[in-house]
Amino acid sequence: MASPEIEHLIKLLAKLPGLGPRSARRAALQLINRREALLQPLARAMAEVSEHVLACGQCGNLDAQDPCAVCADAERDRSVICVVESVADLWALERAGAYRGLYHVLGGTLSALDGVGPEDLNVAGLVARAGEPQVREVILALNATVDGQTTAHYLSDRLDGCDVTISRLAHGVPVGGELDYLDDGTLTAALKARRAV
Amino acid sequence: MASPEIEHLIKLLAKLPGLGPRSARRAALQLINRREALLQPLARAMAEVSEHVLACGQCGNLDAQDPCAVCADAERDRSVICVVESVADLWALERAGAYRGLYHVLGGTLSALDGVGPEDLNVAGLVARAGEPQVREVILALNATVDGQTTAHYLSDRLDGCDVTISRLAHGVPVGGELDYLDDGTLTAALKARRAV
Repeated sequence: MASPEIEHLIKLLAKLPGLGPRSARRAALQLINRREALLQPLARAMAEVSEHVLACGQCGNLDAQDPCAVCADAERDRSVICVVESVADLWALERAGAYRGLYHVLGGTLSALDGVGPEDLNVAGLVARAGEPQVREVILALNATVDGQTTAHYLSDRLDGCDVTISRLAHGVPVGGELDYLDDGTLTAALKARRAV
Repeated sequence: MASPEIEHLIKLLAKLPGLGPRSARRAALQLINRREALLQPLARAMAEVSEHVLACGQCGNLDAQDPCAVCADAERDRSVICVVESVADLWALERAGAYRGLYHVLGGTLSALDGVGPEDLNVAGLVARAGEPQVREVILALNATVDGQTTAHYLSDRLDGCDVTISRLAHGVPVGGELDYLDDGTLTAALKARRAV
């Protein structure tokens, strides 16, 4: 067995998603062998993030400033709010670079199985923001899963009283996708939503 | 894009073996979401290892003490030295729990392709240790790869002058292995080294 310090490090590394006990051991050795280049910078980066990064009080995005860089950006279109489940989804949309409005991170989806109700998600904050006069559209960019779509349905009910357009992402053939490999649901949705060329 | 602090953390996490850019992003989010339970303990564990863990001056094992726990253990058989390529291999043998002698970590294998010569490995230290009067056997526990076997051959030449028995690990059918799935080399080795029941 390795020394207690190393075993402790391996045990913590194994809790990261994507690393099992064996790869955590390899990662720990790699860290120790590259002490100056990897171990010390990583420990510093973690301390930095732990100290400075917090959730934006407005949209729930993670950033070292509050409001976050997106909310604080004067160039952003403040009339559109895009609702996402998690910060990972927000990052994905930002990487795509096609959206220039604001976001709202729910922090999960409704789930009867996992006991997640509306009060566990940031729904009240969304309703309050949607009621602000400058907001004209709320895009429900939730995952196309059962829980995601249930949540989208619930949100569109809750936002019914607000004077905003509610939209959702289009379903269809993924760009680069082959029809032969697509499921029936996606093909049906793509056919139904077909557009004139 | 995430904030610079988070992007920096993701970039460093992606350098760990087994984590790509996408899983590093997931790991970073998991770390931030579990700040108290994972991020802070991991940062502390890394700082601890970075500060205290060093290579044993005698055998090359990694430990917070020098000589390491194996070398310092009075119960260990000091007449046998088991030569391994890396600390990972040492850990594997320790997990098996079948060996109670000392170790010697080479730090790699000879490799003409990668330009690794005998002077890049801890060979001189091994020869010096094998020359000590109490040492009676050196076990070459190198990987059964071309480089590993080349290195084993070289080491047995170098240790020729020392008054020690040189042995290597047995080749054969892995415990739990099925003959149908084994390669010809392993089967040939297992047949050649067959033992009377």
